[in-house]
Amino acid sequence: MIVVLHPQCTPDQQEAVLQRIREAGLVPHLSQGVLRTVIGVIGDDRTKEQLRTMLEAMDGVERVVKVLQPYKLVSREFQPHTTVVPVGPVRIGGPEVVLIAGPCSVESRDQILQAAQAVKQAGAVMLRGGAFKPRTSPYSFQGLEEEGLRLLAEARQATGLPVVTEVMDARQLELVLRYADMVQIGARNMQNYTLLREVGRARCPVLLKRGPAATLEETLLAAEYLLAEGNPHVALCERGLRSFDNHTRFLLDISAVPVLQRLSHLPVLVDPSQAAGKRQWVPPLARAAVAAGADGLLVEVHPDPERALSDGPQQLRPAEFAELVPQLRRVAQAVGRDLAATAAGAPV
Amino acid sequence: MIVVLHPQCTPDQQEAVLQRIREAGLVPHLSQGVLRTVIGVIGDDRTKEQLRTMLEAMDGVERVVKVLQPYKLVSREFQPHTTVVPVGPVRIGGPEVVLIAGPCSVESRDQILQAAQAVKQAGAVMLRGGAFKPRTSPYSFQGLEEEGLRLLAEARQATGLPVVTEVMDARQLELVLRYADMVQIGARNMQNYTLLREVGRARCPVLLKRGPAATLEETLLAAEYLLAEGNPHVALCERGLRSFDNHTRFLLDISAVPVLQRLSHLPVLVDPSQAAGKRQWVPPLARAAVAAGADGLLVEVHPDPERALSDGPQQLRPAEFAELVPQLRRVAQAVGRDLAATAAGAPV
Amino acid sequence: MIVVLHPQCTPDQQEAVLQRIREAGLVPHLSQGVLRTVIGVIGDDRTKEQLRTMLEAMDGVERVVKVLQPYKLVSREFQPHTTVVPVGPVRIGGPEVVLIAGPCSVESRDQILQAAQAVKQAGAVMLRGGAFKPRTSPYSFQGLEEEGLRLLAEARQATGLPVVTEVMDARQLELVLRYADMVQIGARNMQNYTLLREVGRARCPVLLKRGPAATLEETLLAAEYLLAEGNPHVALCERGLRSFDNHTRFLLDISAVPVLQRLSHLPVLVDPSQAAGKRQWVPPLARAAVAAGADGLLVEVHPDPERALSDGPQQLRPAEFAELVPQLRRVAQAVGRDLAATAAGAPV
Amino acid sequence: MIVVLHPQCTPDQQEAVLQRIREAGLVPHLSQGVLRTVIGVIGDDRTKEQLRTMLEAMDGVERVVKVLQPYKLVSREFQPHTTVVPVGPVRIGGPEVVLIAGPCSVESRDQILQAAQAVKQAGAVMLRGGAFKPRTSPYSFQGLEEEGLRLLAEARQATGLPVVTEVMDARQLELVLRYADMVQIGARNMQNYTLLREVGRARCPVLLKRGPAATLEETLLAAEYLLAEGNPHVALCERGLRSFDNHTRFLLDISAVPVLQRLSHLPVLVDPSQAAGKRQWVPPLARAAVAAGADGLLVEVHPDPERALSDGPQQLRPAEFAELVPQLRRVAQAVGRDLAATAAGAPV
Repeated sequence: MIVVLHPQCTPDQQEAVLQRIREAGLVPHLSQGVLRTVIGVIGDDRTKEQLRTMLEAMDGVERVVKVLQPYKLVSREFQPHTTVVPVGPVRIGGPEVVLIAGPCSVESRDQILQAAQAVKQAGAVMLRGGAFKPRTSPYSFQGLEEEGLRLLAEARQATGLPVVTEVMDARQLELVLRYADMVQIGARNMQNYTLLREVGRARCPVLLKRGPAATLEETLLAAEYLLAEGNPHVALCERGLRSFDNHTRFLLDISAVPVLQRLSHLPVLVDPSQAAGKRQWVPPLARAAVAAGADGLLVEVHPDPERALSDGPQQLRPAEFAELVPQLRRVAQAVGRDLAATAAGAPV
Repeated sequence: MIVVLHPQCTPDQQEAVLQRIREAGLVPHLSQGVLRTVIGVIGDDRTKEQLRTMLEAMDGVERVVKVLQPYKLVSREFQPHTTVVPVGPVRIGGPEVVLIAGPCSVESRDQILQAAQAVKQAGAVMLRGGAFKPRTSPYSFQGLEEEGLRLLAEARQATGLPVVTEVMDARQLELVLRYADMVQIGARNMQNYTLLREVGRARCPVLLKRGPAATLEETLLAAEYLLAEGNPHVALCERGLRSFDNHTRFLLDISAVPVLQRLSHLPVLVDPSQAAGKRQWVPPLARAAVAAGADGLLVEVHPDPERALSDGPQQLRPAEFAELVPQLRRVAQAVGRDLAATAAGAPV
Repeated sequence: MIVVLHPQCTPDQQEAVLQRIREAGLVPHLSQGVLRTVIGVIGDDRTKEQLRTMLEAMDGVERVVKVLQPYKLVSREFQPHTTVVPVGPVRIGGPEVVLIAGPCSVESRDQILQAAQAVKQAGAVMLRGGAFKPRTSPYSFQGLEEEGLRLLAEARQATGLPVVTEVMDARQLELVLRYADMVQIGARNMQNYTLLREVGRARCPVLLKRGPAATLEETLLAAEYLLAEGNPHVALCERGLRSFDNHTRFLLDISAVPVLQRLSHLPVLVDPSQAAGKRQWVPPLARAAVAAGADGLLVEVHPDPERALSDGPQQLRPAEFAELVPQLRRVAQAVGRDLAATAAGAPV
Repeated sequence: MIVVLHPQCTPDQQEAVLQRIREAGLVPHLSQGVLRTVIGVIGDDRTKEQLRTMLEAMDGVERVVKVLQPYKLVSREFQPHTTVVPVGPVRIGGPEVVLIAGPCSVESRDQILQAAQAVKQAGAVMLRGGAFKPRTSPYSFQGLEEEGLRLLAEARQATGLPVVTEVMDARQLELVLRYADMVQIGARNMQNYTLLREVGRARCPVLLKRGPAATLEETLLAAEYLLAEGNPHVALCERGLRSFDNHTRFLLDISAVPVLQRLSHLPVLVDPSQAAGKRQWVPPLARAAVAAGADGLLVEVHPDPERALSDGPQQLRPAEFAELVPQLRRVAQAVGRDLAATAAGAPV
């Protein structure tokens, strides 16, 4: 790290800073410029977060600049090859783009079975659907909970599609893992560190969504919690940021796809539905995500969105999704990839 | 609510919309303008969130405008007088401004006792200090956990100051309540609905921090979860929003104070330390918060910030806090209030 | 528009509101709900902006909801077919995607001629280059001004590529139009209404960039200034929003492409270079823009970015641009379009 | 500045970077850490912006960190004492807090004379009012232009209050200066560099408003344009940022007051009206601004806001302003200042 001293830093203050660096077992290199004195600190500053904030708190210090990113296990510098997350027969992070689709919430047996069969026939290779639903209002539909998990498992049985579903609380984890192939940590829980640690210990495939105001560094540090507990099976997901224009629900940060892929070896998915808020914007955002290099998409599809118990306006109808998939395949091929195919021989 | 139809809405689509409103037991009022047809829906739309999203999902609907806010129990319309939250001898939401101070984290017996005595002598009436710490990086100090709670209780014993501390997970709640007088739900957990429900059921005094990208409506709906479970003892806290300038850590939304006080009957506190990120900005933000009408402040004070294990740069030294308090008292008096006084006879 | 009255609105206040609406020559429709009274105002509220703010300023009014968007001439409701902006032989807004490329600034005769020939050979059909440069710092290179315009005209002569360049002030307009085929109104000047009016009167092709914090409605109202003065030759351009993560320079709002195309009949371009800030992010953003349906791209290309006098880090080298173009062609074809071809027979 | 090299930077790339620094006449200091090599560049990097972006554009460079801020003349490092801007008998930046008040727009002789007398009687020492109005929609009232300026001069004659009014375009400057005592550069024109240069050359008192998405560094660089042209009479003004919550029109950045005052010697005003958007939020924001240390306020006051031709909802009535001023005086006194008094003997 590099410590920039205040122009009015006294000799005593400067000495105290140097002393503090030495106490931490690191070597300071003083460099006096015309207008500022800076101190370079040689050593791995990723594990020196505490030293950094201590130095920042000292009198005479103007600021401290990090040279290295504070995450390690998730960084491409640490692991140059892209992680491939296996979920049943599906491989997230390989050469092929993975389509995950299904309703926002599991609402009934008929609804989830219809949705699962429709998305499979259209070309999705994984099924999504919420059983525990984090809802902004306490008066909204909160999900079918365990019954929803059972219906998801039945839909997997019927279609062969592995299932991803959200876990909202560490205590639900064991239950969710009894039914699901991959757990989702939602955007609102991206910095629920208790949950992150437990999912890290469970070593199950995880889909970690970026929070709507999370920097990329914070997102990668949230993933670092998972890897630090021993779970390497992590896929990241961009789903839109809080912004000031309300034509869409969230502002999809399309640049997060290439930037995260450069900073980290973890695969990066995009959820265009959550960002769009209205179904009409889902197809262009989905195409853009594939063109930008996303390793997969999470698309909300509901057999009857006008009767959906949550987020109806942003869910595609099965026919709309079926029309979108070949577009996505052509875009994937245009950028040298292809869509992942449904496992042969699986029941429809 | 008001449904605005698309200019190309067909008669069949319009009829379907009217039908759906009637199915929900509500009465639609059609009004045909030159360029748009709108449908007014008479009835309490606060509990009709689901109908609203269903209508938005229908073909022929351009948008649906809410007439009422979606929260109810927390609204000033529902309860005109300001809620007073009692925490031991302290009253949050009364005529007097409540100063809560203490270190970011509990680090040791000496540290928390020194901090508690210093803030009490300066004029604080409650003690803050983190035992469970939500940290962006897994490599940062994560708090002393139960040992930290015990030390907080000891500091209360020594000073008479009631204690507020963060709870990060529903499973910690029972433990935290054994030691603390008020629990804090942190900004990162503002939409952790499982935690909100459990704290709601516990009916203990709660300090609910606004998330860094939460709208005021989302903040009030998070509080609505607490009240809906039967807990009326809720104080809100503004602590800064994510923004694009990095001279401060977060952007303090000072207007949140009067706006929340108008929309809701819950008291509103401000945490200038978290927003500032650097101790030099804490005093002006603290004064501004009192001038804007805040019902209290949460100020980080550490006996030796240069040795703090978390957030040292934003913690005031005891002498700096002692200098700030009379300024805050004068500002409080200038706006017709006063600072709450330490309970007479309590040990220092 | 719809006027929502406060729950405490008195009968006198309500009558005053009704009176004010009638004074404006419009018809109020009162609708009393259980918890709110609303007044529908029939009539074209686009030209009633003043009435709307007057009603909002009245006692007893909670808020006023617009039913119609405040722009008219730019709206797709007003003109259903997409505008095609002709710039020499180029057509912006037709079925083909238009590539505009060239350096950030014109720096020398050699530089602009090399750049023009390189981008033409790679497949661009228009040349960009700044002669008047709006620079954040007064100490930065401010452009070659008229000499830069002359060099642009020479580059057009040499390559046949029409030229777009920025105009920063109404007094420069006549001069710029002597040399350029299309004028750019930059993001910082999007709400420079004096400039907008004059460019509107000049009726030349215009590239209007969205400001970094402009809503889509504000962007369309800026374009409305141009059309209201009689200039229909307007193309919009998304170039990134101010946001909180600094891995890219601005946050490209990819959803602006389909949303603006739905709201308005004006063609929509994307500038991935300005958003990216670093050349490595330009190709994925450019591909995403085409996949999302952009009518064209503005890409910065410099023969020697390491010697560029402005924005070197975000400018592509000629070889990098030549590698990108076939990717963009494949993506354009994947979404049912193609890249616009250079006019046959033009000199290279 | 400090150049951080990529971990994969080759020896040739590193040598090219060192060579480029030497070419610029500066001395590089190489420092090889375990994981990164950094190069310190000794010298005044404020005038080296171009070198910085050239280095950033080079292969092998990860990023370049500025050690010094890029502004100079406006910095407190350059001039330690606070600038006092004289406007007639008023001193902006002295120990007393300056109240500037008046209507959003000048609408008629009666309106501006009434407003001027009312704000003077209440305690304002300067009059504001727009003659040239930058309006988002071309269909909104655009100001009385020269007639408005004449009426402002008449109001000054009647009350003795110096006048500040906005200039939107360099060509209007001479005209505006014939009538006004101080010119305002509005938020939308903060980066209109042509206008900044001309106002800089005019050396008149200037009120420079921060743009709604401008960083503090960009704001100070805009002011640097003024000082670089020889105009030292510059006051800055915070008026709210673009944000995601719509309860207020803009998000007042109260921390900008102390931060700008620390970074720069220029006085800092606050416009609570523009930020609030509704008159009910103006008093708490105005009090907060004074408590945070603002050197003055710009408050919109209209004799009849319900008939205002622009921004009626955010304009105070004269009685509301008269009620606010003593509150502001008490807050100013609480923080060791006072309100500036109207010049004795001036006509009312």
